[in-house]
Amino acid sequence: MSKISREALLHIPKSNYAYGYDENTLHIRLRSKKKELKKVELRIGDPYVWNRGGAVGNLGASGEGWSGGTYIPMRKELETEYFDYWICEYKPENKRSRYCFVIEGEDEKLLYTEKGVIDLDIAENYKELSNIANFFGYAYLNKIDIPKIPSWVKDTIWYQIFPDRFENGDKSIDPEYVEPWGSKPRHDNFNGGDLQGIINHLDYLQDLGINGIYLCPITEGNTNHRYDTINYMKIDKRLGNEDTLRNLVDEAHKRNIKVMLDAVFNHIGYYSKQWQDVIENKEKSIYKDWFYIKDIETVDTPIENMGKDIPYETFGCVPEMPKLNTENPEVIEYLLEVGRYWVREFDIDAWRLDVSNEVDHTFWRKFRTEVKKVKEDVYILGEIWHNSLPWLMGDQFDSVMNYPLGDAMRDFFCIGQMDAKRFKYTINNVMVSYPLQVNEGTFNLLGSHDTTRILTFSGGNTKKFKLAYLFMMSQAGCPCIYYGDEVGMTGLQTPDCEGQRECMIWDEKDQDKDILEFMKKIIKLRKENSSFKSTNNDWIMVDKYKGLIILRKEDVTIVINNSSKKETIEMPKYLKNRIVYDLYNEKFIEISESVDVDSDDFLILR
Amino acid sequence: MSKISREALLHIPKSNYAYGYDENTLHIRLRSKKKELKKVELRIGDPYVWNRGGAVGNLGASGEGWSGGTYIPMRKELETEYFDYWICEYKPENKRSRYCFVIEGEDEKLLYTEKGVIDLDIAENYKELSNIANFFGYAYLNKIDIPKIPSWVKDTIWYQIFPDRFENGDKSIDPEYVEPWGSKPRHDNFNGGDLQGIINHLDYLQDLGINGIYLCPITEGNTNHRYDTINYMKIDKRLGNEDTLRNLVDEAHKRNIKVMLDAVFNHIGYYSKQWQDVIENKEKSIYKDWFYIKDIETVDTPIENMGKDIPYETFGCVPEMPKLNTENPEVIEYLLEVGRYWVREFDIDAWRLDVSNEVDHTFWRKFRTEVKKVKEDVYILGEIWHNSLPWLMGDQFDSVMNYPLGDAMRDFFCIGQMDAKRFKYTINNVMVSYPLQVNEGTFNLLGSHDTTRILTFSGGNTKKFKLAYLFMMSQAGCPCIYYGDEVGMTGLQTPDCEGQRECMIWDEKDQDKDILEFMKKIIKLRKENSSFKSTNNDWIMVDKYKGLIILRKEDVTIVINNSSKKETIEMPKYLKNRIVYDLYNEKFIEISESVDVDSDDFLILR
Repeated sequence: MSKISREALLHIPKSNYAYGYDENTLHIRLRSKKKELKKVELRIGDPYVWNRGGAVGNLGASGEGWSGGTYIPMRKELETEYFDYWICEYKPENKRSRYCFVIEGEDEKLLYTEKGVIDLDIAENYKELSNIANFFGYAYLNKIDIPKIPSWVKDTIWYQIFPDRFENGDKSIDPEYVEPWGSKPRHDNFNGGDLQGIINHLDYLQDLGINGIYLCPITEGNTNHRYDTINYMKIDKRLGNEDTLRNLVDEAHKRNIKVMLDAVFNHIGYYSKQWQDVIENKEKSIYKDWFYIKDIETVDTPIENMGKDIPYETFGCVPEMPKLNTENPEVIEYLLEVGRYWVREFDIDAWRLDVSNEVDHTFWRKFRTEVKKVKEDVYILGEIWHNSLPWLMGDQFDSVMNYPLGDAMRDFFCIGQMDAKRFKYTINNVMVSYPLQVNEGTFNLLGSHDTTRILTFSGGNTKKFKLAYLFMMSQAGCPCIYYGDEVGMTGLQTPDCEGQRECMIWDEKDQDKDILEFMKKIIKLRKENSSFKSTNNDWIMVDKYKGLIILRKEDVTIVINNSSKKETIEMPKYLKNRIVYDLYNEKFIEISESVDVDSDDFLILR
Repeated sequence: MSKISREALLHIPKSNYAYGYDENTLHIRLRSKKKELKKVELRIGDPYVWNRGGAVGNLGASGEGWSGGTYIPMRKELETEYFDYWICEYKPENKRSRYCFVIEGEDEKLLYTEKGVIDLDIAENYKELSNIANFFGYAYLNKIDIPKIPSWVKDTIWYQIFPDRFENGDKSIDPEYVEPWGSKPRHDNFNGGDLQGIINHLDYLQDLGINGIYLCPITEGNTNHRYDTINYMKIDKRLGNEDTLRNLVDEAHKRNIKVMLDAVFNHIGYYSKQWQDVIENKEKSIYKDWFYIKDIETVDTPIENMGKDIPYETFGCVPEMPKLNTENPEVIEYLLEVGRYWVREFDIDAWRLDVSNEVDHTFWRKFRTEVKKVKEDVYILGEIWHNSLPWLMGDQFDSVMNYPLGDAMRDFFCIGQMDAKRFKYTINNVMVSYPLQVNEGTFNLLGSHDTTRILTFSGGNTKKFKLAYLFMMSQAGCPCIYYGDEVGMTGLQTPDCEGQRECMIWDEKDQDKDILEFMKKIIKLRKENSSFKSTNNDWIMVDKYKGLIILRKEDVTIVINNSSKKETIEMPKYLKNRIVYDLYNEKFIEISESVDVDSDDFLILR
């Protein structure tokens, strides 16, 4: 007899397995061992109006004639390496739910509750179907607790800008040490990129099709990346001033482009007045409790003389970035005001939170409350490279930078160190790691100021690069283009991150026009086909060894040949012997039994 | 070859599987299929000072000579029906951690990371031991996020009082309708119990050995249970007045007895001024947004004419208890002030939160912040009958009423519908459901105003009753005695909960002195032997069929015969042929190979 693996069954209330999707709707997921279950039902109802069973409890009025639990069929959402995931939605009439799962395998029928697994093939156990005392609970669907992302986010295509390297739009504010545009990037040089430079290219960005720009820090800092903040309340004068930013936001908004700034709250810069005060006044500094100081007497040791034992906590092992004590009420109020200020005064639309997982949850909850009070639909995006559920249950961030997705695309399409099957499992695993509405708002990326550029990971192979970008455009969440990727820029990450932070190539003869056209086209396709944004990935075919994928997104089918040779790919039934529209090449084509797809090429069919 | 079940492996960062135990210490747990693993190691270190491997990332200074990951052996914490749980602690030097698990079965060695399972029997996979990009993360151990319960809690033995039924200490405040002490309890009668009655018996309670009293609501209500609050800021005049409460808290504190009140914030009473205003003024009521009203026009329908369609949301299906909208800023501020008021003005020590899982998490986070501001070591206890992790990660409650433990003790000892093995698994499962410090502060109970009394569940068998109470006293957390249990009171729960809410028996000739002496003794034993409070349950022997248990708690061993006949129980090696101290009977006894234990009897050996 084929037994259902008890140890593979998983359900966790109030997690990615059970969450409010909107104020009336619960989503319930169940995990089981792959290919073991043939039927899954959710048995769910209001515990107070359930038909009275044996041990239902004592609350509520008489159950006579009232509705008890109902059965909701669960659909198989997707599969990962070891598991099947099942999902359904339920709208609890009185917002209250108690539930269990009735699952059927080949030879077994089981009841899965909070208290364990019960064999329903034993007749007397049927009474357990009413023993709601043992069930899982979602006691009340409180609206305020539901993860909710601003509605505009899921339609956004971001473009990340590293300000010093995008464009020098106002030479009058250049310091004398600015180096010529296009000079070899170093960690300690400046190229004069500024806010006016961004304004000058908003038309370019609009033409590209993006509708959100994410700017690395623009407040006063000591380096070209400005993650070592000197003053959170002042724009770095090498970038412009408050008026330039107002103008930038205004011009962006005119073009329906959202603006996201970078909140660097884990640490401050060495040259901030706060840290300088600590160095100067040590024990007497009014700022000493703003930091985690291990040895106040030696905080003034020159950086070049510090060994590995930095006398205060820092970001990484970087003495230039003393860690802020975000449990200190003064620090909290200061940083909250920073969060409010740029939204209130400059009408920015989003905050990206640097190193957000090293700052306490308590702070982020306050941050969310305060910033959303100023502007309800501000998007709050955490920088976390790992699974981020503890930040994504509605009380802290709207979403996170989706590095797990990015890593998978890099490894499968560009580096070739992941096979198609594992790629599918990884993508699927990301999808079930969060509430679906969070997936609709993830910040998807193929590279950033912190990584090697994706074209470099592709070994310069623009076809592989294109497959990765195409795939990203086909996924739920909001894709982001790292500045210059669209014109074929490369860049290898070095220890000090110079490589991927070169000056933007504006000289058209040096731009890769083929890539640029491709980018415009897939952005347009994503905008015109809402199917691309669907959280449903229907993997019609995945060939592990050949690297072939047929992915169905509602009415669109994407065929990918991620291999080194042309392949003849058999079409799924619903496409065979039909005339379909080739979305990318904008023409109708006739499909017979199969299609030939070149190495590293793709087809988008509707 | 015996394969390790991949699908049974489970680890979830920032949950009961990975949490801050104190400001320097992480606890890490791993789940695996039972009896499959022979060795488990945690590989953990600071991601920024890890020896540079292949894909370690770009941050931090040079890794030269710096420490990388270390291996920490994990011990088997306990087993449940299908799983082994492993645990270890780690003190991250820089508060930052990245980690994975290296596990060995009979024939396999695997690496388990956030990205999946990797076979370490393949030599080339060893490089994955340094690929920290794939590891789990606990980015920074922020002190403020750590679940922390007041230090006094774990030493507390509670006594729950239903005020109307404990003692009439001041007849001068009795309304005329008070019925004679000991009259048959009804849901709608009053017996005149009051605060002075509690004061009068504080010496009795001190003599019993308890050091905390939990009072069901004492503010103005319309019923004898007062869960239908009329005024949260006023003591019900039938119970006394503000001075009586001050005196009660004062006298309790003199005896080192803590005082816990009941916060009923999910709903208010029908006769509150707020709800009466809604009934009277409907759409014009200033309180209408305090509630979830479905049909404002019919809110004044007399309760007796309401069918099942109550025109507003309620607790359960009880029209007398309109649900409060705890997302409304006015309601929030009002209830927060209630929470602060009784702590600030009366120095109470704890809040028990009624129906806490139907109120939003957002409210409870504010409640915690506000109440702890008034008195840092207030104990916040949620009423939740189910798994409660989403409330117990440090931001909301200190702990919860431990009904899962109580249900198991009831089912195993008293009703006899759970075998010894399942009992062990259930107890163990509760233990791994929460951070250990939360387990040290759970409110353990065998009954309450909401359940049949445990002696009634025992069919009047006082020996079974004693086994249950003994076992509860041997567990981590704080045990609670429901008033009267200690003198042998019985009471069957009826739909309106009259049965378990009888008047306390004060007439000594009607008290069960044997139970009373037993209670005093086990309370004293718990206080004198800190081993009883340990979170370690070492199940030396569990006989599923005979109902025998040998449970070791550090230096104390408890032998239980929960069966209908005398049993000869073989002693574990460490007790054989030794003279040990019989803690309960206060004498040394000589143990040979085995001991005889009567039906439903026990031995406590040290």
